[in-house]
Amino acid sequence: MAHPGDLSELDVRIRNGAIRADRIVAVIGKTEGNGGVNDFTRGYFTQSLMHLLSTHLDASPAELAARIPCILSGGTEGVLSPHYVVFCRCEDDDNDAEDGGALAIGIAFSSPTATGEIGRAVHARQVADAVRAAMRDAGIAHVDDVHFVQIKTPCITVARAEAARAQGVEPVSGDPNRAMAYARAAGALGVALALGEVEEGAVTDAAMLADMALYSERASVSSGVEISCNEVIVLGNSPHWTGPYRIAHRAMKDALDIGAVVGALADLGLDAAPQLDETALARIAGVFVKCEPQRQGRVRASRHTMLDDTDINAQRHVRGAVGGLVAGVIGDGRIFVSGGAEHQGPDGGGLIAVIAGRPQP
Amino acid sequence: MAHPGDLSELDVRIRNGAIRADRIVAVIGKTEGNGGVNDFTRGYFTQSLMHLLSTHLDASPAELAARIPCILSGGTEGVLSPHYVVFCRCEDDDNDAEDGGALAIGIAFSSPTATGEIGRAVHARQVADAVRAAMRDAGIAHVDDVHFVQIKTPCITVARAEAARAQGVEPVSGDPNRAMAYARAAGALGVALALGEVEEGAVTDAAMLADMALYSERASVSSGVEISCNEVIVLGNSPHWTGPYRIAHRAMKDALDIGAVVGALADLGLDAAPQLDETALARIAGVFVKCEPQRQGRVRASRHTMLDDTDINAQRHVRGAVGGLVAGVIGDGRIFVSGGAEHQGPDGGGLIAVIAGRPQP
Amino acid sequence: MAHPGDLSELDVRIRNGAIRADRIVAVIGKTEGNGGVNDFTRGYFTQSLMHLLSTHLDASPAELAARIPCILSGGTEGVLSPHYVVFCRCEDDDNDAEDGGALAIGIAFSSPTATGEIGRAVHARQVADAVRAAMRDAGIAHVDDVHFVQIKTPCITVARAEAARAQGVEPVSGDPNRAMAYARAAGALGVALALGEVEEGAVTDAAMLADMALYSERASVSSGVEISCNEVIVLGNSPHWTGPYRIAHRAMKDALDIGAVVGALADLGLDAAPQLDETALARIAGVFVKCEPQRQGRVRASRHTMLDDTDINAQRHVRGAVGGLVAGVIGDGRIFVSGGAEHQGPDGGGLIAVIAGRPQP
Amino acid sequence: MAHPGDLSELDVRIRNGAIRADRIVAVIGKTEGNGGVNDFTRGYFTQSLMHLLSTHLDASPAELAARIPCILSGGTEGVLSPHYVVFCRCEDDDNDAEDGGALAIGIAFSSPTATGEIGRAVHARQVADAVRAAMRDAGIAHVDDVHFVQIKTPCITVARAEAARAQGVEPVSGDPNRAMAYARAAGALGVALALGEVEEGAVTDAAMLADMALYSERASVSSGVEISCNEVIVLGNSPHWTGPYRIAHRAMKDALDIGAVVGALADLGLDAAPQLDETALARIAGVFVKCEPQRQGRVRASRHTMLDDTDINAQRHVRGAVGGLVAGVIGDGRIFVSGGAEHQGPDGGGLIAVIAGRPQP
Repeated sequence: MAHPGDLSELDVRIRNGAIRADRIVAVIGKTEGNGGVNDFTRGYFTQSLMHLLSTHLDASPAELAARIPCILSGGTEGVLSPHYVVFCRCEDDDNDAEDGGALAIGIAFSSPTATGEIGRAVHARQVADAVRAAMRDAGIAHVDDVHFVQIKTPCITVARAEAARAQGVEPVSGDPNRAMAYARAAGALGVALALGEVEEGAVTDAAMLADMALYSERASVSSGVEISCNEVIVLGNSPHWTGPYRIAHRAMKDALDIGAVVGALADLGLDAAPQLDETALARIAGVFVKCEPQRQGRVRASRHTMLDDTDINAQRHVRGAVGGLVAGVIGDGRIFVSGGAEHQGPDGGGLIAVIAGRPQP
Repeated sequence: MAHPGDLSELDVRIRNGAIRADRIVAVIGKTEGNGGVNDFTRGYFTQSLMHLLSTHLDASPAELAARIPCILSGGTEGVLSPHYVVFCRCEDDDNDAEDGGALAIGIAFSSPTATGEIGRAVHARQVADAVRAAMRDAGIAHVDDVHFVQIKTPCITVARAEAARAQGVEPVSGDPNRAMAYARAAGALGVALALGEVEEGAVTDAAMLADMALYSERASVSSGVEISCNEVIVLGNSPHWTGPYRIAHRAMKDALDIGAVVGALADLGLDAAPQLDETALARIAGVFVKCEPQRQGRVRASRHTMLDDTDINAQRHVRGAVGGLVAGVIGDGRIFVSGGAEHQGPDGGGLIAVIAGRPQP
Repeated sequence: MAHPGDLSELDVRIRNGAIRADRIVAVIGKTEGNGGVNDFTRGYFTQSLMHLLSTHLDASPAELAARIPCILSGGTEGVLSPHYVVFCRCEDDDNDAEDGGALAIGIAFSSPTATGEIGRAVHARQVADAVRAAMRDAGIAHVDDVHFVQIKTPCITVARAEAARAQGVEPVSGDPNRAMAYARAAGALGVALALGEVEEGAVTDAAMLADMALYSERASVSSGVEISCNEVIVLGNSPHWTGPYRIAHRAMKDALDIGAVVGALADLGLDAAPQLDETALARIAGVFVKCEPQRQGRVRASRHTMLDDTDINAQRHVRGAVGGLVAGVIGDGRIFVSGGAEHQGPDGGGLIAVIAGRPQP
Repeated sequence: MAHPGDLSELDVRIRNGAIRADRIVAVIGKTEGNGGVNDFTRGYFTQSLMHLLSTHLDASPAELAARIPCILSGGTEGVLSPHYVVFCRCEDDDNDAEDGGALAIGIAFSSPTATGEIGRAVHARQVADAVRAAMRDAGIAHVDDVHFVQIKTPCITVARAEAARAQGVEPVSGDPNRAMAYARAAGALGVALALGEVEEGAVTDAAMLADMALYSERASVSSGVEISCNEVIVLGNSPHWTGPYRIAHRAMKDALDIGAVVGALADLGLDAAPQLDETALARIAGVFVKCEPQRQGRVRASRHTMLDDTDINAQRHVRGAVGGLVAGVIGDGRIFVSGGAEHQGPDGGGLIAVIAGRPQP
């Protein structure tokens, strides 16, 4: 991408037949905005993508936006590079089945979440249902085969909060940023519920953003003002799928957890000692990371200054640092690194998922 | 450090006898400002340090500032942690001599550099002479035994430029930031000259900031308005020294060069696979890194966005990313990471030096 | 505008007949990005605008973009509010002619400026020709009747610079930001030439960004990578035009020049003592301001810190301050305030133009 | 000031006898940091000031810091200029008494505020008592003669919160930034109580940061981690004082309220039409402003973007805009403009106080 509205590489691939537009089921990407409330690079990319696809498919941009999840994280701090991953699937793939199965993807949309429900336990349960639906869509029967669940969840705008109060419903928080964190929390705990990572009874209104011992090792949640239902992308390995790719994941216990990065790669037979070589790097198809500045202001033995910086947002800080670490191990800056990891991996840490092709014989 | 004026930990160590104030010969540290022209955390730390030392020594703060180099890099982006390294030396150390020698330190101050000389070849030669003097002070005879040279060089303020022009002398640049980069370039090529890394004839006025194939793998240069001569700290290993520490270094070819980090550690018998364990980490006494955003806007195969970001300075970006990588390998955020690495390591990369204690028997 | 892609208010007005889409000849607006190289809110707005217009007109977005100048300034610091001004014109307006004439608008596009010409005197002369063409298009015969000229000029990207060098042509500067400033300088001096504000012989290559005594009091120039020719919008008063609006302008001698603001309003019969009242404010149709941080770091008697701030770009600083002043006099935050005012108004100052409707009887 | 540690101008005035160091009772200033949690320019200035004064007075820096309130606001956005105002008083002033009295200053320190009390109604009452004590110190009997009350109040650090909880006391908020806002609220309502601007019964725990109809038109509150008691500076006019200065104030109803600025000047016989002329400007001795981004995201008819900007802190935005307005009316950038104006002036607005000398005959 030369800029957030640049879809020319995808256009080329559709035009030359490398990608069939009707097989595109989801897009996950990083754009070069600030990743905050006033990051419009996500909207610009989405508008550009949907306009492009509508020229190739018999559907309007709005119809496509309702059908194809496009989940973006803003912020390419440091060595991170703007990029997007296009997920395609088809029924008639003629690859041979592989031992242990191959990368599977499933999509689901929940029904709309009411403003009064957002960020509460009922919201988590809606998300859990949608995750289960996406697992069915992916043909993944067992939760252990799920390795990454990307969620986009609605949030509470000032206008929605006012409308709810007019009907006598108090939203979980009147502060839009805080409400967005609650929405991410509900999304993450919904994934944890569906994957059996937390017990049903543990997911309560009170647990949200409070009981940080509850988390999913495989949830990546963003929250957006532009949607009213929950969009779910489930990625895992399935014996029913063929194709060259497999996926693995690890929890990251803190921002220095290089072991998790190396471990996830090792699960796919990739040896970073200390960095992937050219052959190994060529197998990488996508790297997805969630992270969070440690909330007591410490990284292991030392004080960090991310939370107190008035000039650089803490999420921009942590994306830059964790992005630098993961890119250094991989040997490439095209890494999806997203902040706001509440209940997504251990508190103060996060998680990593890697998609890689099989070794070439 | 709780804040840039907090020297309480040093005060405690001086009071309890762990450190003798009269043995302090240099301080290198990172403070939590923005690292730019308007970063006053460096001045605040220096003022606090010199006031503290003047309560323990029979000298005024101003006298101490002229005697003890205090070289600070502002900016603790991401996981980096504010910290300082205090270098002490004494003649009567009763440690036994070690095979291969031990960490040696030498200090030198050049005579003042005239405004019209700053950033030019004559400036580099002054620095080279000062480096040779510091090597003699350190008792290091061979350039191969030098592993890190920290320089602080004067720069050209608007006032100095005007004064020079009034005398008919045109400074190397009228833009203070550009002039500062020239001053760093002269400092780096001065080190390269003294260490035999470049040929005498190659260091010309025209080569400064232009011939990026010329560089030192061991120079770390900062430039400050508050000084008029060049301050030099040479660190190396010397058979004439005893003590628990040794130093190693590597060039970093780019911001993803994790191999250089692992390599410098390996030179000291430290195994990061992928991270130092607790015992190895306990041996680390100091990590010093220089880095620079690649100037064509690329990190290996991909576009980076550091140079085009109007909201976060490119040096802040790169310090955060490289700091995240090095801290991840070390397992600690107390890393000195400094930008502005012109002619300090390969273009678009930089260098790393590590000081570690010997293994405990 | 709720966000930079929000054209809903224009859509409503086109749908309800308040605005005829085929009468739209130009759009000038402010979007809420950072106003720098990585401000994509301008591209997002333009894409959204052209897509909207293409649904109402028989032309593709690309065709419309080549026909309708859409000139945006990013950055709504402080009290500034995102907004856009849509200029419409028609031949068959049935308003009665007014004494002294009415607001007139003319558009022109120059032929493409070669990379080697950008930012040089030949570029200024191309712009001057285009300004004269736009004056003819506006039906304005006398330069005194021109009050504001908005220019968008091509600039030199890294790619264009390389292509030029491959043909043996050295661009005015290899630094994209510096080249952009040269392009704005050429645009401004082109306006100054066309309006007789500077003498023909004074506009030389050497004068660009150097002889700051040369300037236009009526030029507002932006520079964009996406165009190859110069786009010109001339605004003035013409006896041949009818309609409710008139325009006035003043030079601002520095960022505190409140007298210029009050003076431009007074020229239109608007009394700010100290602020426009509700009736007067209702007459305001557009306020356009150019400004610049004073380059010696001083505002009158005092030091300012805009140029040394590593965390906030100097143009963001000055837009916020001058925007606060002008909005306070007007009583409204919908002010177009743009930085980068080289040769546009006195050095360290800038200019203001105001469009207002006639008083209601 | 050339930088935040530069007290050379004060040193000169003490040395040449223009200022007697033992008459200095308070300092209020603006330094060029970011004004946030990680703004260390305030500590740097204070350390430098107290070291300077200790060389002129028989007291240690720490003793002086406990006796002389030094209240700083960080952030000189836009045209604002770093500066400080030194308040001196003496008993034996030989100026003749003036009609209507002259500027009077009083200082008071409260007893320490317990962590559990900070930001609550009991805190406001402590402040009110201290304001009354400072009024007595100033010899001001009537609340109408008070025009500006500068407060520095302790706040709740993470460490203090933990210590309080260990004793079974829950602080008003666990979020340091939120707790700081509560502390400012208590300080402001304490002033309002002492000056009779709100009723005794209205100041409750629940009213803090909630009932924004309660405010003082004369309170300016900052909150600092380094103090445990409340420091109060009362400024007013008193018939018992002589000297050349008088003070006036106005509430500002929003960030565009230029009328308040012009009004406060008019109260002192200064005519800004639209700007002070040279003679009038020479009479200005200090301008003090509090302001706040409107919390619904609107300035009058229009949306502002200050609260949603991830890259520039909202307080930096609003200081730049309001500073630009006030500096434009005054004709000078040496204006004290401070954010965080909860309950200090009308909600979404703030207040202004001006100290001016009498006209020269």
